[in-house]
Amino acid sequence: MANWVAVDWGTSNLRAWAMRGAVQVDFEQSEQGMGGLTPGAFEPALMDLIGDWIEGPTRVIACGMVGARQGWVEAAYRPVPCLVTAPDALTKAPTQDARLDMRIAPGICQAEPPDVMRGEETQIAGYLAQNPDFDGILCLPGTHTKWVHISAAEVVSFRTFMSGELFALLSQHSVLRHSVGADGWDAEAFADAVGQTLSRPERLAAELFGLRAAGLVGPQTPEAAKARLSGLLIGAELAAARPYWLGQDVAVLGDPSLTAHYAAALRLQGLAPREAAGDALALAGLTEIYMKGQ
Amino acid sequence: MANWVAVDWGTSNLRAWAMRGAVQVDFEQSEQGMGGLTPGAFEPALMDLIGDWIEGPTRVIACGMVGARQGWVEAAYRPVPCLVTAPDALTKAPTQDARLDMRIAPGICQAEPPDVMRGEETQIAGYLAQNPDFDGILCLPGTHTKWVHISAAEVVSFRTFMSGELFALLSQHSVLRHSVGADGWDAEAFADAVGQTLSRPERLAAELFGLRAAGLVGPQTPEAAKARLSGLLIGAELAAARPYWLGQDVAVLGDPSLTAHYAAALRLQGLAPREAAGDALALAGLTEIYMKGQ
Repeated sequence: MANWVAVDWGTSNLRAWAMRGAVQVDFEQSEQGMGGLTPGAFEPALMDLIGDWIEGPTRVIACGMVGARQGWVEAAYRPVPCLVTAPDALTKAPTQDARLDMRIAPGICQAEPPDVMRGEETQIAGYLAQNPDFDGILCLPGTHTKWVHISAAEVVSFRTFMSGELFALLSQHSVLRHSVGADGWDAEAFADAVGQTLSRPERLAAELFGLRAAGLVGPQTPEAAKARLSGLLIGAELAAARPYWLGQDVAVLGDPSLTAHYAAALRLQGLAPREAAGDALALAGLTEIYMKGQ
Repeated sequence: MANWVAVDWGTSNLRAWAMRGAVQVDFEQSEQGMGGLTPGAFEPALMDLIGDWIEGPTRVIACGMVGARQGWVEAAYRPVPCLVTAPDALTKAPTQDARLDMRIAPGICQAEPPDVMRGEETQIAGYLAQNPDFDGILCLPGTHTKWVHISAAEVVSFRTFMSGELFALLSQHSVLRHSVGADGWDAEAFADAVGQTLSRPERLAAELFGLRAAGLVGPQTPEAAKARLSGLLIGAELAAARPYWLGQDVAVLGDPSLTAHYAAALRLQGLAPREAAGDALALAGLTEIYMKGQ
């Protein structure tokens, strides 16, 4: 039995941990992400995973898109600057099953420039729980990559980039799908492309179709095209995010296959970024919220 | 009866004109574009449209993606610099029906930076047939917008931008689909966005997610989001294409709803671009090829 349950509920996945204090006793996951659920389907989707873990009323703490307007219940954004966690500001979700004491963590918003995050703040809380003295920049690569300025355990400002979603759309659904390989990597092509768009960001618009044309006019391997597309997008992102990383202490958090590319691009600029696998960070952040709320 | 047939065969459409010399006597079209056809399906798709027009062996001149590697037969690219048309360089396509004397116009390629066009060269030929003294820059907006430097009836250089395909992918398949309206237009939001990415192209990467966030954090109409997305992409394209248009005589050719946006963006930079509807240009170009080949 769990004395509380931690839940990371994103657009496409649902992960749940049975917890006793800070100790994990069980884990389940499903593909019942928020993106595919109607309002009434959240509670059954969760109970499918955790029903066996709970007896009497049990605290469940969830983060992620489950708190979006289209989620179980909307958990309001907190405006920057703010502490990464707010154990007193969880939103209680309505439930049918009296055993569920369901609480959803708020996201964070920024008025100018307009921006939002929902879920990443809990991963950040996990990183700060493990690195309590960290002051600097966190980069969380993904579908929507976040660059976050952290000072004194507060989120000072942040900016979101769609590079991950652009990479997926361009490599799978645009004319570039004929040129970009699914596997393999060409580190030299990546580095060259990062340098091009970082120094001259307008080249992004010009070089994208060039990936298609290069394969028609001359030789270009699918691995090189894939690495070049990624490099062009990440270089343009770094050009826009320069105020975040230039001369800063940067840590890159997330899927190691993604953090490796961002870290490589940053090393090309003379930085020495740290990398941390993102898997465990959401759980660490949810645990931080639970423990602080006791 | 036709004494020759003009065919504009793109990825998604097939258009055919029955001709007597330079005079159009009939027109048919279908959605049997090159993108959906297997190699053996080209001849039947064409005969469906033009079978009634031809008796004895008849010259058919086609332009567009029908000449791609995946088309009826590959019509080699001609390298720049080159004249826009090459009546002597048509590729004969194999046919079952002896009445068909099927010829496909070559595309144009460029080695550095790598680029290709296939179909646009014939529209350009049509424009030059109507404006024989034109020297300057042609902009052909579309899925893959072309900027083309024309001098003395030759294509000197060109560059392709994927802004149209990016707009479609982002507005229909990315997270921005929730923010971007299908209808309406906000000219002020468009002009503001063009200015942002034209002066600071790195803002494209930063401002895309901002379109989503702006609607969550504050008010933003779907029309404004649509116009801003278009403006951000066209502004970034203009920044990259600046060597083409700066201080030049520019004509924008194509679908009037698209040319209007490009022309508006160029006027914001102090230019006075001409606009020409693209419908008739392919036919004018095919006619030019036919007449010169007589």
